[in-house]
Amino acid sequence: MKKILIINGPNLNLLGRREPEIYGNKSFNEYFLELELRYPDVQLEYLQSNHEGHIIDRLHSVGFSYDGIILNAGAYTHTSLAIHDAIKSITTPVVELHISNVYAREEFRRHSMIAPACRGCICGFGLKGYDLAIESFL
Amino acid sequence: MKKILIINGPNLNLLGRREPEIYGNKSFNEYFLELELRYPDVQLEYLQSNHEGHIIDRLHSVGFSYDGIILNAGAYTHTSLAIHDAIKSITTPVVELHISNVYAREEFRRHSMIAPACRGCICGFGLKGYDLAIESFL
Amino acid sequence: MKKILIINGPNLNLLGRREPEIYGNKSFNEYFLELELRYPDVQLEYLQSNHEGHIIDRLHSVGFSYDGIILNAGAYTHTSLAIHDAIKSITTPVVELHISNVYAREEFRRHSMIAPACRGCICGFGLKGYDLAIESFL
Amino acid sequence: MKKILIINGPNLNLLGRREPEIYGNKSFNEYFLELELRYPDVQLEYLQSNHEGHIIDRLHSVGFSYDGIILNAGAYTHTSLAIHDAIKSITTPVVELHISNVYAREEFRRHSMIAPACRGCICGFGLKGYDLAIESFL
Amino acid sequence: MKKILIINGPNLNLLGRREPEIYGNKSFNEYFLELELRYPDVQLEYLQSNHEGHIIDRLHSVGFSYDGIILNAGAYTHTSLAIHDAIKSITTPVVELHISNVYAREEFRRHSMIAPACRGCICGFGLKGYDLAIESFL
Amino acid sequence: MKKILIINGPNLNLLGRREPEIYGNKSFNEYFLELELRYPDVQLEYLQSNHEGHIIDRLHSVGFSYDGIILNAGAYTHTSLAIHDAIKSITTPVVELHISNVYAREEFRRHSMIAPACRGCICGFGLKGYDLAIESFL
Amino acid sequence: MKKILIINGPNLNLLGRREPEIYGNKSFNEYFLELELRYPDVQLEYLQSNHEGHIIDRLHSVGFSYDGIILNAGAYTHTSLAIHDAIKSITTPVVELHISNVYAREEFRRHSMIAPACRGCICGFGLKGYDLAIESFL
Amino acid sequence: MKKILIINGPNLNLLGRREPEIYGNKSFNEYFLELELRYPDVQLEYLQSNHEGHIIDRLHSVGFSYDGIILNAGAYTHTSLAIHDAIKSITTPVVELHISNVYAREEFRRHSMIAPACRGCICGFGLKGYDLAIESFL
Amino acid sequence: MKKILIINGPNLNLLGRREPEIYGNKSFNEYFLELELRYPDVQLEYLQSNHEGHIIDRLHSVGFSYDGIILNAGAYTHTSLAIHDAIKSITTPVVELHISNVYAREEFRRHSMIAPACRGCICGFGLKGYDLAIESFL
Amino acid sequence: MKKILIINGPNLNLLGRREPEIYGNKSFNEYFLELELRYPDVQLEYLQSNHEGHIIDRLHSVGFSYDGIILNAGAYTHTSLAIHDAIKSITTPVVELHISNVYAREEFRRHSMIAPACRGCICGFGLKGYDLAIESFL
Amino acid sequence: MKKILIINGPNLNLLGRREPEIYGNKSFNEYFLELELRYPDVQLEYLQSNHEGHIIDRLHSVGFSYDGIILNAGAYTHTSLAIHDAIKSITTPVVELHISNVYAREEFRRHSMIAPACRGCICGFGLKGYDLAIESFL
Amino acid sequence: MKKILIINGPNLNLLGRREPEIYGNKSFNEYFLELELRYPDVQLEYLQSNHEGHIIDRLHSVGFSYDGIILNAGAYTHTSLAIHDAIKSITTPVVELHISNVYAREEFRRHSMIAPACRGCICGFGLKGYDLAIESFL
Repeated sequence: MKKILIINGPNLNLLGRREPEIYGNKSFNEYFLELELRYPDVQLEYLQSNHEGHIIDRLHSVGFSYDGIILNAGAYTHTSLAIHDAIKSITTPVVELHISNVYAREEFRRHSMIAPACRGCICGFGLKGYDLAIESFL
Repeated sequence: MKKILIINGPNLNLLGRREPEIYGNKSFNEYFLELELRYPDVQLEYLQSNHEGHIIDRLHSVGFSYDGIILNAGAYTHTSLAIHDAIKSITTPVVELHISNVYAREEFRRHSMIAPACRGCICGFGLKGYDLAIESFL
Repeated sequence: MKKILIINGPNLNLLGRREPEIYGNKSFNEYFLELELRYPDVQLEYLQSNHEGHIIDRLHSVGFSYDGIILNAGAYTHTSLAIHDAIKSITTPVVELHISNVYAREEFRRHSMIAPACRGCICGFGLKGYDLAIESFL
Repeated sequence: MKKILIINGPNLNLLGRREPEIYGNKSFNEYFLELELRYPDVQLEYLQSNHEGHIIDRLHSVGFSYDGIILNAGAYTHTSLAIHDAIKSITTPVVELHISNVYAREEFRRHSMIAPACRGCICGFGLKGYDLAIESFL
Repeated sequence: MKKILIINGPNLNLLGRREPEIYGNKSFNEYFLELELRYPDVQLEYLQSNHEGHIIDRLHSVGFSYDGIILNAGAYTHTSLAIHDAIKSITTPVVELHISNVYAREEFRRHSMIAPACRGCICGFGLKGYDLAIESFL
Repeated sequence: MKKILIINGPNLNLLGRREPEIYGNKSFNEYFLELELRYPDVQLEYLQSNHEGHIIDRLHSVGFSYDGIILNAGAYTHTSLAIHDAIKSITTPVVELHISNVYAREEFRRHSMIAPACRGCICGFGLKGYDLAIESFL
Repeated sequence: MKKILIINGPNLNLLGRREPEIYGNKSFNEYFLELELRYPDVQLEYLQSNHEGHIIDRLHSVGFSYDGIILNAGAYTHTSLAIHDAIKSITTPVVELHISNVYAREEFRRHSMIAPACRGCICGFGLKGYDLAIESFL
Repeated sequence: MKKILIINGPNLNLLGRREPEIYGNKSFNEYFLELELRYPDVQLEYLQSNHEGHIIDRLHSVGFSYDGIILNAGAYTHTSLAIHDAIKSITTPVVELHISNVYAREEFRRHSMIAPACRGCICGFGLKGYDLAIESFL
Repeated sequence: MKKILIINGPNLNLLGRREPEIYGNKSFNEYFLELELRYPDVQLEYLQSNHEGHIIDRLHSVGFSYDGIILNAGAYTHTSLAIHDAIKSITTPVVELHISNVYAREEFRRHSMIAPACRGCICGFGLKGYDLAIESFL
Repeated sequence: MKKILIINGPNLNLLGRREPEIYGNKSFNEYFLELELRYPDVQLEYLQSNHEGHIIDRLHSVGFSYDGIILNAGAYTHTSLAIHDAIKSITTPVVELHISNVYAREEFRRHSMIAPACRGCICGFGLKGYDLAIESFL
Repeated sequence: MKKILIINGPNLNLLGRREPEIYGNKSFNEYFLELELRYPDVQLEYLQSNHEGHIIDRLHSVGFSYDGIILNAGAYTHTSLAIHDAIKSITTPVVELHISNVYAREEFRRHSMIAPACRGCICGFGLKGYDLAIESFL
Repeated sequence: MKKILIINGPNLNLLGRREPEIYGNKSFNEYFLELELRYPDVQLEYLQSNHEGHIIDRLHSVGFSYDGIILNAGAYTHTSLAIHDAIKSITTPVVELHISNVYAREEFRRHSMIAPACRGCICGFGLKGYDLAIESFL
């Protein structure tokens, strides 16, 4: 049975509450339950954190044994070289994910510091993107 | 029955032959047959062209009636404002796709001129990315 | 009788259909008929193409015998050095034209690669700009 | 009867005297008389000033009652954010005008700070450009 | 017998007619005849096209069997990433050629997008450069 | 009794009339009367000018005797090095003020040329900012 | 009774000890007591943290119920896109505050990443700035 | 008898009072008297103005009849394209002058917009620079 | 007896495991034991953390009493202005250290935000660099 | 009999020894003997120097009497404005030469400071490039 | 008796021969004789060198005993940080001199690396500038 | 017995005399004697030169036989690509050294052109840095 960790970064705990015109109004906890139902053969795990350091700690702790990591690093996508290095340091492949099409928003959201360290990137498909990311590991 | 057009841009006719360490060694024609088998309920269509103008012409001709377009614009991704405008001009949603993780390659491949006009982007999953893109429309 | 060629570049075939809040909802073919009526003493000719190469070919073929060329190069305005060179290579004066005020839109539409090779520029007057451009040759 | 104000900015009082290879050798006062004859149904008014503040003052004083303003802001085109704001503050539409093709001259003349606030732009047609600008309001 | 293809890009069909103070006044067709006489032991072939797509198509069709390609890509030199990718995709070595010394002209002609994919570059020797390029393959 | 001068720069005479969605619809003259009532123990003075030179002249004339200057330099904030130097030349402390949050508007409004010469900055509080600025001197 | 939270970011716990020529030599704890005395009708709360994640957590926890937040984000002002997003995600208005005039210091302190998300900004007034910020909410 | 005009731009009226560690503490009026004594055979004239427009007006009025103009444009040196154009428009040669060595001060004082239009430049010699500038015309 | 703290930043807990071709394959804990043996007269202390905030907290807690701090800030070297400010805020001298020659790696590793606040820098000597850094304090 | 000087700049004395994967393993002295045999009717001369000043001295001493100079300026290609000026100062035409394709190497090797002053450029053909350069003068 | 050294940098030995339309056609040796006659009370000395190192050596050898140095560093003006440091290292004041108005020439000649280390600058006055520079020391 | 060469670049001959607040007031010759005493088992050699070419020559002559080179390239650190290439061309490892913390000085001293070619870098430790560099080779 495959083990996949989903990490949501800063402010994504407010999903469903924050800027719903961009992010929709469903909370991620609800959606995570649906994902578990849809992928009964995958062992899914979920972390949300606003702390860059916690995200790095967790990448380290699962990054040599899990089959995949789906990382929506939120704003840290654009500023965290430390997460980039963390992804490079581990062996589990990481998929970068964004709910909205970050390329159609502010200029500063067009540059990802972590993308070069990831296997691939999925963005713009709303919460459905998490399904596609899981599919990519199967 | 959903109608989806796949457009591959310049040099992608050499897939399987060109830089196989980056793009693999399967031609897209072979893969397209597999896609048709895997998605029997989708009407798939395929265009490869090295001509910016042809790609625009085709976007116009299907862009008000099809359900989705998957566009791997190759090098035009990074230079063609005209394709960007074409995508904005039509109503069919377009998904940008790259076989390799363009963010892990040369600097000039990190900027997409067409991304802001697309619904979303999928990159880095090899040919499997086309499956994910089709899934995104279902 | 003066001979004037109007060239509309990529995506302008969708005029009246594409982003009507920017470009209005009259097709250029309709407008061209009006122009022919308004300027009975001018021999007007019209080309629309999405192909950079076709636009260059046509500039060459008329560029040593016509009295004027009105060029709305669309997105190629901002990327085509080849059209710039083509204009420099011919002797017929070329007027650059834009329907909308390109300076009030996205940043990347503020730089024209072809302007330095043209006689002058008219932008922001909607389709009426074509009238002004014709007037400029009379 | 339409009311149109023509404003010429810094150094344009030397027209006919300054760099005649660029600007020609007719003074604007002479040309203004011709314009009045050519457009008997338009109430034309003319201001030349080398003072940024005066230009702003005048934009304010006519900018809620006139039908159009033709503004050749000279060098202030490239440096005056205050004129940009003045144009935005008023309701009369403003047309930016340049006698020479500014895009074919020094690099620093290629960027207009006021263009985004104007309705449109006409440049490169010599003094005839003022005719075209008047036409654009009719 | 060695097979060498010469490709001249946009506007080079006007050679001898376009800006003769830069490019001289001999047409390339005349010069090509001289080349055939001077190199009787080389099978020379010639393509001129203003279409980026055609140039790519031809690079593909000869790029796995010919001994050398001499590419004067004209303005596409500075804008076409697609031609860069095409050269990388084939196995025949390509020599970049410019008739004039592009480094002594406008700033935007100093950057070649295709040079990194070529074997080498020859520029500034007028039409004689084609002789030197042929020599380089012998 | 403290003496404080309020200077409003270009276009602020249109306050209440210009872009009311940004600046509100109360004229500054009305607000100035309220300020005088609210701060009976302060000798308040007010200048509005669209002329960079006048603003400098006034800074000089009061800048060695008053207790404070509140300067809303409007667009000159972003372009006037001369006002920056004027502030540096005098001994009365100057507070920079903006009615709107300039950092949330166009990019070019994010850089203040005069800020480094001022004591401090207050922005984004609407007309109430003038109260805060007066408070800062008490 | 209004509820206002004051957040001081990294290194501000050393206030009174760190670079006193810039920040003065009074600790913020002392000053906070004075503030509580001066504003008996406001429920003031105070957080100092060197952790970007903690600041975000606290913004979330009070950001839908408090009346105002005063945020001196210290160095995170210039680097934290995540705090910017957090401010955008909540409904309580945030005022950005700096003790010193950041515009008169090093170049890298002139750009605030959080300013566009805040209601307004107060800087350069020393600790008195906290008074002004509280006033702005009353 | 040679006629030379000295123009001092914004804030130079405060000479002797403003930042004496940079500019010294002698007023220019005193120094001008000394210059008149030192150069009895030169007809010297002096203008100080904080108004960009006045400086341009005066350049025009003497710029076709005087033998030389010495221009210390103060802060307008770095921002005024209009003064640059004014210098280009006249026939009297202009010498740019700065009292301090502007290259050893803030970065933004290193770029002169008017230098390319002047005959030459003298800077860093204190008030003695005016002597050298007069000498340069003799 | 001198007290020296060694701080290793993000991902350095994986030393010996992460990218061994760059960082070698010895863990820092092993090396720290060797250091303690080699410097019996120095009281050495060690912290590894992936949290920017923890690093700042510790810099504060020892930064007024220890004799030296050796800081390998990992990726925070290039992004953390907050650590820069922390170093400036304390009195213990800090030596910046990198195991690899960061100047010979990716472009973004060439700029250190903390270097200007440190006493000096040692990089490229592998783990031996820690010995050199300790020596520098003796 | 034509006189041609070959100048090799810094580090090219190590040819055959330095980075043979880029430059090959034949020393230039050996190759120079071959050149003399191949071009018996040309008077060839050779200078290698690591000193920018020596290269300039020699350019001056032959630059008014020789028929051609072949200059491989090594790293000075990218930094020496003084050599650029030296080439401009003399009348003998200079051909710039590089053994490797500098455009396919580090970014900083893509910009030549001397190219605009040269007649033309040959690069990427290994030592054979010297033959081509000699041919270009015949 | 004052001792003044004049240093002319690279290519200035060709003065009178090199680009006479910019530099005139008098050799500096001739002019130096005139200077000696004109300033009998000054001990003048002259060095011309194309070698950056020689110029530095000489600056060192006279830089603690002479009264002034006039330095026309030619192209090294724009590239030599080492000469900048040399000037900073000595106590004799140095005046930067250029024969032509470098600000009216190529863009790269507008930035002087040595200017911030000099007392002042004189440019654009032809050889007469050397007279002015000597005057500046008297 | 190990052989180590120390090279000091331009202006370092003035050590002890030049800007003592930055570099201290001990000459390097004195310090070199101390080094020889402290490292009796190392054969130390010393070169100071203001000539870029001499430094390159010496790097070549010892660079295939010595055990280490310590290079304080002074200002050439920031401008000399030729020294970078020289270091790359030899096999002896080179350690870059700076006496002061170059990162805490002017912006232009923050970029080293030679660092990527060196083994490592030591800066900011005063003359003691030379001891550390020697240690690094033992």
